[in-house]
Amino acid sequence: MERIKPRTLSGFMELLPGAQLQMDRIMEIIRSSYSLYGFTPLDTPLIEASEILLAKGGGETEKQIYRFTKGDTDLSLRFDLTVPLAKYVALHYADLAFPFRRFQIGKVYRGERAQRGRFREFYQADIDVIGDGQLDIANDAEIPAIIYTVFSRLGLRRFQIRINNRKVLNGFYAMLGLTEKSGEIMRAVDKLEKIGADGVRAVLTDELSLTAAQADDILSFTAIHGTNDAVLASLESYRGRNPLFDEGLDELATVAKYLGGFGVPQENFAVDLTIARGLDYYTGTVYETALLDHPEIGSVCSGGRYDNLAEYYTDRQLPGVGISIGLTRLFYVLGEQGMLNPDAPAAPADVLILPMTDDLSAAVSLATSLRARGLRTQLYTEAKKFKAKMNYADKLGVPFVLFLGEDEINSGVVSCKNMRSGEQEKLSPDAAADRIEAFVKGQLSTAPIIEK
Amino acid sequence: MERIKPRTLSGFMELLPGAQLQMDRIMEIIRSSYSLYGFTPLDTPLIEASEILLAKGGGETEKQIYRFTKGDTDLSLRFDLTVPLAKYVALHYADLAFPFRRFQIGKVYRGERAQRGRFREFYQADIDVIGDGQLDIANDAEIPAIIYTVFSRLGLRRFQIRINNRKVLNGFYAMLGLTEKSGEIMRAVDKLEKIGADGVRAVLTDELSLTAAQADDILSFTAIHGTNDAVLASLESYRGRNPLFDEGLDELATVAKYLGGFGVPQENFAVDLTIARGLDYYTGTVYETALLDHPEIGSVCSGGRYDNLAEYYTDRQLPGVGISIGLTRLFYVLGEQGMLNPDAPAAPADVLILPMTDDLSAAVSLATSLRARGLRTQLYTEAKKFKAKMNYADKLGVPFVLFLGEDEINSGVVSCKNMRSGEQEKLSPDAAADRIEAFVKGQLSTAPIIEK
Repeated sequence: MERIKPRTLSGFMELLPGAQLQMDRIMEIIRSSYSLYGFTPLDTPLIEASEILLAKGGGETEKQIYRFTKGDTDLSLRFDLTVPLAKYVALHYADLAFPFRRFQIGKVYRGERAQRGRFREFYQADIDVIGDGQLDIANDAEIPAIIYTVFSRLGLRRFQIRINNRKVLNGFYAMLGLTEKSGEIMRAVDKLEKIGADGVRAVLTDELSLTAAQADDILSFTAIHGTNDAVLASLESYRGRNPLFDEGLDELATVAKYLGGFGVPQENFAVDLTIARGLDYYTGTVYETALLDHPEIGSVCSGGRYDNLAEYYTDRQLPGVGISIGLTRLFYVLGEQGMLNPDAPAAPADVLILPMTDDLSAAVSLATSLRARGLRTQLYTEAKKFKAKMNYADKLGVPFVLFLGEDEINSGVVSCKNMRSGEQEKLSPDAAADRIEAFVKGQLSTAPIIEK
Repeated sequence: MERIKPRTLSGFMELLPGAQLQMDRIMEIIRSSYSLYGFTPLDTPLIEASEILLAKGGGETEKQIYRFTKGDTDLSLRFDLTVPLAKYVALHYADLAFPFRRFQIGKVYRGERAQRGRFREFYQADIDVIGDGQLDIANDAEIPAIIYTVFSRLGLRRFQIRINNRKVLNGFYAMLGLTEKSGEIMRAVDKLEKIGADGVRAVLTDELSLTAAQADDILSFTAIHGTNDAVLASLESYRGRNPLFDEGLDELATVAKYLGGFGVPQENFAVDLTIARGLDYYTGTVYETALLDHPEIGSVCSGGRYDNLAEYYTDRQLPGVGISIGLTRLFYVLGEQGMLNPDAPAAPADVLILPMTDDLSAAVSLATSLRARGLRTQLYTEAKKFKAKMNYADKLGVPFVLFLGEDEINSGVVSCKNMRSGEQEKLSPDAAADRIEAFVKGQLSTAPIIEK
């Protein structure tokens, strides 16, 4: 028979078992954290009618989309989780309770040029709160608490959630008579870290034709920094000159006010006037999340407030606020940085039983009793030499091996080997199970990510 | 703006929040049951190169596949989880330990004619054990134990795992000199339940040109039934006439021998000589699982033993045994039958906090303390009338509501309403949390499926 060379498409992540277990653990932490805040899981189709996904139309996205026909139907693979959410909320409006809080962890597809660390199939892990007509600003204050919970449960401490408000920025530009250029100015300011203040000044004056005074005003505004209280106090000095600015400032102040109560420590949060987010979509609060020791990674969790989720499908005004974690890229980058905890559980089983007799009855019963105690148990059944069996145990990385030969069966014990320490001793099956259970419980507190 | 009518494609399941939570719970039970037996999770791409997925070629599958090009690449969506597994094992052979035990719960795609209860996007939940060169028959005995664990944890008792062995069937047909017609005979026998013994006899004699004596032999063989011991004893009377038959009988007997030790009760298991499975793929043990009170549903979990998983991609002989649950269809059918437990948790939160003051600080702190105890807590932040707030609580279906007004804040209590009983009383925040926690713990033992 002619063989076909097995391969996985470029830009598609396919993990080996140990890494997959680490990825699953990270996903489970995200899932349970989102649930803790009262978000409900959704699972929408990977495929939608193209007219639905492309309702907004235009732009880079359309070029990247996986689009095809099946029969007479023009279909596309989803390229984010927001457009399917918009469709879902418009379609099922009557059956939903608002504010509608949902999370979704799912794969999305973008046919980007393949390059290292860029994926064409990748997970996004999103939450959104959708209001019907209006949505209180307190929701915007809860979002950083959720980000904080997720990342601290993953094992991180050195991260900062950065927040700004587009109304503050747009209001400030309006004070300078620059409303029409606000989008371009934000994109210029967004480059501050990359090209420096002088570089931004040059763009503002040379490319956007601002006066030197206007450019100075913008740069000194952007340079405001300090504690959250200090930044908010500085912003107060601009109050009363533009209603949009004042509204944005009130929103920022409310978010800052509730954050402590929501459990976010001061050091993990900053009002940062340089954060703008590229997308036109956002209209109020915007979020980014930086790993402080790894600025090169960029934001690991971003989002913001928008006025109208589903305007392409319904006349109803559905404002919302949400964030997204680009999970596949995050996992890849953490691996590159050596930040995946090697002590985190990565074995398919807690214990491997190696029977040393032809008849497996005793081993089968032992496996059943361990499983009844909730221990992930594998029974090795192959007729191989001892060395091959031990190689198998090593390759799986199981923490414990139980040997069961004639002697053990006759004495009602098992030989229990701790594969980490190499220690081996004869124990009653219950005592062995206790020991394995204690280890498994200890492993539960092992974070999947370590800082370095 | 012109609106586009929101819709979800026909044949694609999209659940409302309550149903989605039930589906997720079922998935979680399957996942944890598979893990308990030492299977490791895999997550392979939804998209593969068409030459990989269609290596086997031909048949109905090819017509149903979602196939398209992106740039120059000929791509297809996976139509099952077995072909991607074959590719995975062939590709990553050197990095895997054999026997390789993996589970995968993922969506697959088949562009079938849309009809009620048929899905084009649906979940399969598969396990497979793959050996390198050989794989002990004891693995085949463990599979029914896994099926038993899954379905009993889901809440079912009235189900039966039916097992047969293709070597027994093929060996028996060989005794009758009918080896070349064995595939057709199996397909005829497969119709026994539908067309009856006389119908099958007519097919055997008229269509397949068997003699009346051959047809009688086949029908009396198929009619063997009784306890597992009785069926195996009847089969012993055929021993010694065909080596393949004898091998199959030994395998069946070994599987039956270990089943009790693996924890499968007699009443949930039957050696059933009418089970053949349509696919040529299977070479030994075959499984089906019937819901005894709902024969119309057909098998809810099927699978078997195969000789060569990855023959299209590698010269290595990789025998395996596995099963698959068609999860989306199962969930749909259970819903149709009214078998989804209405008492199973279906709310996005365990408790909803309704603040009765403008300042939310006290409510925010309360939410944070409940979340610190692991309770899924939603804080309602909208400035609505009391009635609207209660309607919201009702629509979400949360089991508990905590009211927090000036009085409660000043007295250091919360008004705790049990939404099931309607009872409301003032409690300390800790006492309220205790009450909610007790309810949540009780709910954990609620099975997602009820029999009726």
